[in-house]
Amino acid sequence: MLIRLGYDIEFNIPQPVAVVALLNVHPSREQDLREPDELRVEPAVRADTYIDHLGNKCTRFLAPQGKLRLWNSTLIQDSAERDPVNYQARQHPVEELPVHNLTYLMNSRYCEVDRMSNIATELFGNTAPGWGRVQAIVNWIHSRVQFGYQHARATRTALDVYTERVGVCRDFQHLAITFCRCMHIPARYATGYLGDIGVPPSPAPMDFSAWFEVYLDGKWWTFDARHNEPRVGRVLMATGRDAGDVAMTTSFGMAELAKFSVVTNEVHDVAPFQNPQSYAVA
Amino acid sequence: MLIRLGYDIEFNIPQPVAVVALLNVHPSREQDLREPDELRVEPAVRADTYIDHLGNKCTRFLAPQGKLRLWNSTLIQDSAERDPVNYQARQHPVEELPVHNLTYLMNSRYCEVDRMSNIATELFGNTAPGWGRVQAIVNWIHSRVQFGYQHARATRTALDVYTERVGVCRDFQHLAITFCRCMHIPARYATGYLGDIGVPPSPAPMDFSAWFEVYLDGKWWTFDARHNEPRVGRVLMATGRDAGDVAMTTSFGMAELAKFSVVTNEVHDVAPFQNPQSYAVA
Amino acid sequence: MLIRLGYDIEFNIPQPVAVVALLNVHPSREQDLREPDELRVEPAVRADTYIDHLGNKCTRFLAPQGKLRLWNSTLIQDSAERDPVNYQARQHPVEELPVHNLTYLMNSRYCEVDRMSNIATELFGNTAPGWGRVQAIVNWIHSRVQFGYQHARATRTALDVYTERVGVCRDFQHLAITFCRCMHIPARYATGYLGDIGVPPSPAPMDFSAWFEVYLDGKWWTFDARHNEPRVGRVLMATGRDAGDVAMTTSFGMAELAKFSVVTNEVHDVAPFQNPQSYAVA
Amino acid sequence: MLIRLGYDIEFNIPQPVAVVALLNVHPSREQDLREPDELRVEPAVRADTYIDHLGNKCTRFLAPQGKLRLWNSTLIQDSAERDPVNYQARQHPVEELPVHNLTYLMNSRYCEVDRMSNIATELFGNTAPGWGRVQAIVNWIHSRVQFGYQHARATRTALDVYTERVGVCRDFQHLAITFCRCMHIPARYATGYLGDIGVPPSPAPMDFSAWFEVYLDGKWWTFDARHNEPRVGRVLMATGRDAGDVAMTTSFGMAELAKFSVVTNEVHDVAPFQNPQSYAVA
Repeated sequence: MLIRLGYDIEFNIPQPVAVVALLNVHPSREQDLREPDELRVEPAVRADTYIDHLGNKCTRFLAPQGKLRLWNSTLIQDSAERDPVNYQARQHPVEELPVHNLTYLMNSRYCEVDRMSNIATELFGNTAPGWGRVQAIVNWIHSRVQFGYQHARATRTALDVYTERVGVCRDFQHLAITFCRCMHIPARYATGYLGDIGVPPSPAPMDFSAWFEVYLDGKWWTFDARHNEPRVGRVLMATGRDAGDVAMTTSFGMAELAKFSVVTNEVHDVAPFQNPQSYAVA
Repeated sequence: MLIRLGYDIEFNIPQPVAVVALLNVHPSREQDLREPDELRVEPAVRADTYIDHLGNKCTRFLAPQGKLRLWNSTLIQDSAERDPVNYQARQHPVEELPVHNLTYLMNSRYCEVDRMSNIATELFGNTAPGWGRVQAIVNWIHSRVQFGYQHARATRTALDVYTERVGVCRDFQHLAITFCRCMHIPARYATGYLGDIGVPPSPAPMDFSAWFEVYLDGKWWTFDARHNEPRVGRVLMATGRDAGDVAMTTSFGMAELAKFSVVTNEVHDVAPFQNPQSYAVA
Repeated sequence: MLIRLGYDIEFNIPQPVAVVALLNVHPSREQDLREPDELRVEPAVRADTYIDHLGNKCTRFLAPQGKLRLWNSTLIQDSAERDPVNYQARQHPVEELPVHNLTYLMNSRYCEVDRMSNIATELFGNTAPGWGRVQAIVNWIHSRVQFGYQHARATRTALDVYTERVGVCRDFQHLAITFCRCMHIPARYATGYLGDIGVPPSPAPMDFSAWFEVYLDGKWWTFDARHNEPRVGRVLMATGRDAGDVAMTTSFGMAELAKFSVVTNEVHDVAPFQNPQSYAVA
Repeated sequence: MLIRLGYDIEFNIPQPVAVVALLNVHPSREQDLREPDELRVEPAVRADTYIDHLGNKCTRFLAPQGKLRLWNSTLIQDSAERDPVNYQARQHPVEELPVHNLTYLMNSRYCEVDRMSNIATELFGNTAPGWGRVQAIVNWIHSRVQFGYQHARATRTALDVYTERVGVCRDFQHLAITFCRCMHIPARYATGYLGDIGVPPSPAPMDFSAWFEVYLDGKWWTFDARHNEPRVGRVLMATGRDAGDVAMTTSFGMAELAKFSVVTNEVHDVAPFQNPQSYAVA
């Protein structure tokens, strides 16, 4: 399957400001690209591209005053397979985990493992370790937290999600990640493209999406506490301890979002190059 | 100058539990060691030693049920110089920072950069960038937060320190780190040994200490919002985004602290090997 | 001046639920009414009307399953004078305050006096006691907090307003009340009607409004940290320690808001009785 | 049974400060007094005594600079009966509650009913309404929260108790009160004397104690989530929405506690007047 990916984002920049963007496909998916995956910055700037300590591709530049546009359009080959499910995947004892996964058991900005351990143990302490425990966590959250874009709030933590029971994508994943860590299952935040492929089209405008990964039986597996069903066509952009590590853009000063659109569609006849203006919306 | 370093820590372990310890001298100081620096675990266990992604030396093992003792005694050469002071050290624009220092501008578990930016700007926005700004932050905290061991609380964040105005070492540094990051100065948490060398002896039992580092003018510099004076004899053990990254020990399950002592003294005549029992206290 | 007041509110009630409504004009304004001020409940229910311990007129009833409509239309005489300003109003020492005003110096749900005292003292400790101090508080908030309906959040406290610097009416007043209490000035939350009388009409739909009162020089005075200008035509409905005491409606179970409109207009030729359907909007 | 009650409290007052004290026996127990119940203030000051809007006896005065001593010794007749237990006590529907009890269903400073409703419903939604539901709440808290004076923290809320699972008297009661309110049972905080009568003597120094009351079947009943057993010899001093309403002393400025002792002992031969110095401890 081929998937057309892209975005078109504009900011108003009142004065020059440094920006870090995580707007490339994750290095683990570069082999699948069928067109270049290049973050285009207008006006043109000198940019530093690097891989951060979490393995994500980042771009850092100084945005001049005025309108800033970040856009891209690329094409990727995808397996067309749903997220794998493996109820036999076993949970590693902490003493046997690869040592570099231990960081994904710890507290992070939006995931208060220390404050939620007792709660997690009460809710999930009786489930069998491994895949089923993660699925129990995801089921619990999926059935009790209500999704709504109007509930978006940048400072909401996992504990807030637990008390408020409302949120957007990231909130569902933060709570799931926190519960998994409390149960000693390494869990990390994932962000990327997730189109309406194989599911009824959503009336909401396309956006980037968030899900999470857990480390079981020797590898990382995809879970999604918001959708709670295996999906086709996830294209990973970045992973981190939580949303704080993988913001699409971080500006070190004022930057007012003026326009935002994302494309992620299955394509059959591939045009040689798609003009991104064609999908940009005001 | 030679400094005798060591610790003797005991836990009661009700059932086998995985432990991660950061109880070695930092790799950057290994060249100064004059005796082996070895974490001794009793009873003997199989342990994995590794350098984490932040550059710290870590040990991971499974502690069996019963009494667990962690101890060490080593000797290190120290310059006997005070923490350097450089009022000319300039602040890098974010777009010129080494990219791997950008993580030290972000939110972390105990440092809510997002919630404290407006406050920091009001308090320190008029100071000149660079060393003087960091010093202004440290002065502010040092004069307004009251130290007291009775105020220790594992979940206190920088915002809590700002509202409560009490705390222990780590709290002073968390608030300073957060303010620095809000002002776009990379700041990281540091932990290690700091004895009463060149200062009147403290009546409190020796403990590990916390300070922080900022990145100015091409390198990391030591600041200490608790003591707010250049000191002699800091021996670094670990650095991280905040205390959550560099806990001396993290146990993934119950472990009750039963005994805790730390040694860090200037020594003149070096005995061949000091029996750590001699300084262990109940 | 005559002001037409009214509201038309509808809820969907999935199962019978007890409701407390504070939807009458405050007893202190009853003398000014020119038409009856009666909360109309559809379908008709048995209701208990009472004055709560804060002096507000309340109605408590059991709402049956189905559609619940609460509406009213009344007419009130108003002085047409702006909120009084008195820079000479002095601040009472706490030991001379009427004892029943002491409760308005204390912590309440949304006003964390204990957590914000140090901050208030730093910001306002050098202002002269009395009216000017309150005005300094109001100026500070008015110039630093950004109003926006999209920022509404029922659980936001004064400390949250202080860190986030965004909010709706109630948030501005909560922060002002908290700062006043920290400075030992009794302050209470006020809610009622505030139409666009004597000011340019607002494009936003009419809503109830919030302001606050402080006790200086022997009486309560009106301040408004959102608008920060003396206004004409405030009609008080209720006062309390904070918004938690004076919710327009509190339902002890599910009640989904389906329709909400408020009227508060100066009228010149008074029709004998206005049919509220005429101003109800979907 | 006769109980000797008293206290001896000293503060250092750096500069004159207004103080409100709630240090009398509750008006509902005045009929049981066998000696005068008089708050003695040294040095002598002019004081205002009043009943606050919650029904508690309060004293307000200006403490001069220097040492402030508050003391009292009185004698009260007590029934010697344990706290009553009535598993048949039914829960009132909210629409049938006495209207002045509705305030005890609402949010207060330390009791975040809004944030804890979903949690309470999950934990206790399946219990039968009435006494058994309160007992289920008390059992849950008693078995899961650990008591310890070292855990005292003035700003800890019910949600903090729920996540931290540690606390002192007041913390146990705050969580219980919050859960009861979430389940629509009026609950209020109570403070007073509770000696070791009919129970093994505690090694801890005597202190005032906190418990809580719920309104069931037409009256208020005593519960105690810390001790969770019917006790003899409670002497009520004050009730309120939470600890914020009934602080023993509130000072509007600095007052450093220098000495604190409480007496509450069953007595058999009553001396005509007991010199309080005899029980004052340093």
